[in-house]
Amino acid sequence: MTIGSFAFERGGELDLDVAYAEYGDPEDPTVLVCHALTGSQYVAGPAPEGVSGQAAGWWDALVGPGKPIDTRAYHVVCANVPGSCYGTTGPASEGPDGEPYGADFPPVTVSDWTRSQARLLDELGVETLYAVVGGSVGGMNALDWAKRYPERVERVAAIATSPRLDAQCLGLNTAADAPSRATRTSRAATTTAVPEPDEGLAVARRIGHVMYLSKASMSDRFDRRVAERQPAERADPSAEGFPYRDVASYLDYNAERFTERFDANSYLSLLRALDEYDLAQDAPSDAAALAGYEGDALVVSFTGDWHFPPEGGEEIADALEGGAGAVAHRVIESEYGHDAFLVEPDRVGPPVRTLLERGASAVTTETERDVTPDYPRVCTGLLPDA
Amino acid sequence: MTIGSFAFERGGELDLDVAYAEYGDPEDPTVLVCHALTGSQYVAGPAPEGVSGQAAGWWDALVGPGKPIDTRAYHVVCANVPGSCYGTTGPASEGPDGEPYGADFPPVTVSDWTRSQARLLDELGVETLYAVVGGSVGGMNALDWAKRYPERVERVAAIATSPRLDAQCLGLNTAADAPSRATRTSRAATTTAVPEPDEGLAVARRIGHVMYLSKASMSDRFDRRVAERQPAERADPSAEGFPYRDVASYLDYNAERFTERFDANSYLSLLRALDEYDLAQDAPSDAAALAGYEGDALVVSFTGDWHFPPEGGEEIADALEGGAGAVAHRVIESEYGHDAFLVEPDRVGPPVRTLLERGASAVTTETERDVTPDYPRVCTGLLPDA
Repeated sequence: MTIGSFAFERGGELDLDVAYAEYGDPEDPTVLVCHALTGSQYVAGPAPEGVSGQAAGWWDALVGPGKPIDTRAYHVVCANVPGSCYGTTGPASEGPDGEPYGADFPPVTVSDWTRSQARLLDELGVETLYAVVGGSVGGMNALDWAKRYPERVERVAAIATSPRLDAQCLGLNTAADAPSRATRTSRAATTTAVPEPDEGLAVARRIGHVMYLSKASMSDRFDRRVAERQPAERADPSAEGFPYRDVASYLDYNAERFTERFDANSYLSLLRALDEYDLAQDAPSDAAALAGYEGDALVVSFTGDWHFPPEGGEEIADALEGGAGAVAHRVIESEYGHDAFLVEPDRVGPPVRTLLERGASAVTTETERDVTPDYPRVCTGLLPDA
Repeated sequence: MTIGSFAFERGGELDLDVAYAEYGDPEDPTVLVCHALTGSQYVAGPAPEGVSGQAAGWWDALVGPGKPIDTRAYHVVCANVPGSCYGTTGPASEGPDGEPYGADFPPVTVSDWTRSQARLLDELGVETLYAVVGGSVGGMNALDWAKRYPERVERVAAIATSPRLDAQCLGLNTAADAPSRATRTSRAATTTAVPEPDEGLAVARRIGHVMYLSKASMSDRFDRRVAERQPAERADPSAEGFPYRDVASYLDYNAERFTERFDANSYLSLLRALDEYDLAQDAPSDAAALAGYEGDALVVSFTGDWHFPPEGGEEIADALEGGAGAVAHRVIESEYGHDAFLVEPDRVGPPVRTLLERGASAVTTETERDVTPDYPRVCTGLLPDA
């Protein structure tokens, strides 16, 4: 859907198309789901051809009839973020001159995502969100809703996320985007002597996968096992002396698949937005940033997530505590690492369901938080019959 | 020094030059020091021009007159490993046809390093080593001495090392070497359309630095601070909207410096040797691999080292326990991460000094190990006057 002229936070303005998916009855209370870095609007069910991997039905176990985000009770909306490549205007989109924007696409921030979603919801006639739910950088997006439009949000669920990336994550992203930085396709740049942007994208994806898994889960899953299939031809002749291992096979395979579904310039744009996100931006503290938010909040984090560890979840919960709503921080013991928010739906679903049905005060927490809302909250959503 | 024709473990044979440095009096008992991945033979003191960073005097605080590895008491030898680029024959060396070997250099393993050192010591007339000391992959090299030539080694110190890389490290190395793999210069390959190998090397080094630091130390050192100097020109035009941060500046700077001192093909060769190293190779277990070793052993590991965590050090110590000598595992609490073995010489030095002067049974351990040597050991080295 075209939302008209859109001014980006860091400069630049263009007519923005926002691609979105919706589920359930538009008359029901609306739950906005925010996707992760390389996700798409296709949060549940089948996705169109070409949309695969973690972009296709990535929370199918969470969103649907009778599921934790029950589409018989809620109108679920998920929008592809500006800068991405699943239909919303981004670097791979055609610019006014008929060429892709490429590196000339305006710099994108999480706040641009939030503001584009708000404009979309305006167009859809949705004023108040029953809930905003997101994981990873989608959790940052959800928190940005509570910060930027507190009056429009009744519940927020921030899953496997952080108030901001730490130096280690920034450092790994610096390594990940280096090949793409050096070779980014720009309409302005000469196109000779630059390597394939996909190669840089593949490097970034390999690093990403290691960040998303935990040390323990990688050992469990791959150990040092030799891959069943050795590559027919090794790019590096001297590699012939050494076995090709499962972990290399996994990373190489997934990196290659990723380049088929994702645009290198989009990835760089979104990675910058992730790096740049800071809950406390334009505010003296995280708590001050969220001071205006009066709804309930659920924070979910995973013990094996070294990318966004539970400490960050606790900082978010602390920041939310000053508000009027109830806050629950559910720490889930999982060795899956950051990927747990996608691969452990059976553990993510229940607290999300409870938040939606009964509010954050009804969510039991391992690290129990004594946060009592100072006004009684009424559940306005329809209860599923589960 | 030319050690003559050398047959590599995984195939290939060539006349091998081994570059080495020696310190102290050759009549004294010999301590062999094994360098880390990108180190050199210049373990202490000044290094020749072009040898910089972690290759130049990298353990200057540990090796010298009166220092823990006291050159007034011991003859210290350090040799550059085959495959490296500091004088020992490697991919950057000129082959018989006058061109650099490049990717055609034989695959290199840690055992090749050990065997080349043994040949060098033969040439130098050194039969028995008073001690072998090494950190990181140099620690693997030291352990390989105890495994391969147990009768030639009286004491071994394996610092910040592991019996083998785990899947996470292998995965990060897979990401790190991907650009180089794809673009490796080979005399056989066409040289068109391949990007600069240095670019791949720089990516690998950025990842390496993140692996060598700990999450906590990166936060302490960089947090999210914006770099004082913003780059005059950003390779990526859209990066203009975002601050260049200290952590990116540090990684970019060090990656660039690294490409000035190291050869991309050498890095790939050494990384493969590291990936491939397995203490239990050709043996039913780590303990079986070390069953023939009767000397003392010191294992040092660092709590903040997520690359080679103390658990791996404990595995090594356990494997050594079956031998006749004393074994001590000193766990050092340090937030410096893997780099601690280089940047905390005040903490590495004392247990090394004790090992050399009084044996492993005299090393106090935080995680005290009740290993009593079953024969009394006599300190054959000269005692420093410290």
